[in-house]
Amino acid sequence: MKLYSYFRSSAAYRVRIALNLKGLDYDYAPVHLVRGGGEQLKSDYRALNPDGIVPTLVDGDDVLTQSLAIIEYLEETHPEPALLPRDPADRAFVRSVALQIACEIHPVDNLRVLKYLKHEVTVPDDVKDAWYRHWIDSGFTSLEKRLASDKRVGALTFGDTPTLADLCIVPQVFNARRFDIDLSPYPTIVRIADHASQIEAFAKAAPAAQPDAE
Amino acid sequence: MKLYSYFRSSAAYRVRIALNLKGLDYDYAPVHLVRGGGEQLKSDYRALNPDGIVPTLVDGDDVLTQSLAIIEYLEETHPEPALLPRDPADRAFVRSVALQIACEIHPVDNLRVLKYLKHEVTVPDDVKDAWYRHWIDSGFTSLEKRLASDKRVGALTFGDTPTLADLCIVPQVFNARRFDIDLSPYPTIVRIADHASQIEAFAKAAPAAQPDAE
Repeated sequence: MKLYSYFRSSAAYRVRIALNLKGLDYDYAPVHLVRGGGEQLKSDYRALNPDGIVPTLVDGDDVLTQSLAIIEYLEETHPEPALLPRDPADRAFVRSVALQIACEIHPVDNLRVLKYLKHEVTVPDDVKDAWYRHWIDSGFTSLEKRLASDKRVGALTFGDTPTLADLCIVPQVFNARRFDIDLSPYPTIVRIADHASQIEAFAKAAPAAQPDAE
Repeated sequence: MKLYSYFRSSAAYRVRIALNLKGLDYDYAPVHLVRGGGEQLKSDYRALNPDGIVPTLVDGDDVLTQSLAIIEYLEETHPEPALLPRDPADRAFVRSVALQIACEIHPVDNLRVLKYLKHEVTVPDDVKDAWYRHWIDSGFTSLEKRLASDKRVGALTFGDTPTLADLCIVPQVFNARRFDIDLSPYPTIVRIADHASQIEAFAKAAPAAQPDAE
């Protein structure tokens, strides 16, 4: 398998954790999202991934895009260790935490939206920074409420075993810290992220541990 | 089952189609996203869904949020008719189309983001409208490329049978038309949406057919 990735991309980070947890070897193909206007927007990469985003996973003849679709694919083709619980309602809980991050927080704060805000809407940097903080804070406020009150939460989102939810929480917390967001209102989220980050599969997937880290 | 919904919400629309395709009866609980500043933000609804968004599906003791997590739950608890193909790579294809809409287009153009742009960033209406068009156009451009070239596409996204992908395409096209976006550059997307919309389960889920339609 070959993973097209960028060390700092949250979405690629999720897939790297999944591959590591499943014990799957893969070739790392770096796609620099900033250099030269972004390698992800060049025609050779777009032939693989028309959306011009990372990650892309190539498995034999199959070209897979969208991090959560890739992780569900890995779960179906390599079921052990499972990244989703067995009970449908529990699976829905884990998926909803993942999607809350992947749909409500990350897309509104990702690189291309921030670039559009800066260059097309031409907002000053403080408005852009407030934008970033706002979507982290509004998303984390409700996520913290859910995680602090749900009995299924343990050392990680679902008991003590890594699930799809933790794969999304860790990169989002990494991002928030990179932008110096005050995370003290979100102790459960931070506790889960810090616990997960110590697991080898998560540590090996961290941005600083990637071949293209700067 | 009880579905908290708003007639015009794309995410609720997806779940309504899934419930109809599966032949599942449900009670419709309207949540008005605009009136009085938004019923979804009131404390009684937020006790159910801390994120303050629709839909929420209540099934017995289980409270389920996030449209794609709800649809995967329905798929697992009521497998027939299947909304995902059988082969893992095909499932990944269908899920990636759904996620491309649910993660790359819809969140950046949804009501709360447009409200923040207008009231906090205080952009004029033409900048807000250009924002809306930009994310539809950039998302649909790459989605059209994928759908026009993938051999799995038939009358619908995956052959002629409705899948999770069509459940996301139809509401997004409905939204784009509501905002008068020129869809002529996206003939495959439009063809799929129009074909799907004629299926009874989709027609019954349309905004105009809901009890809270205005």
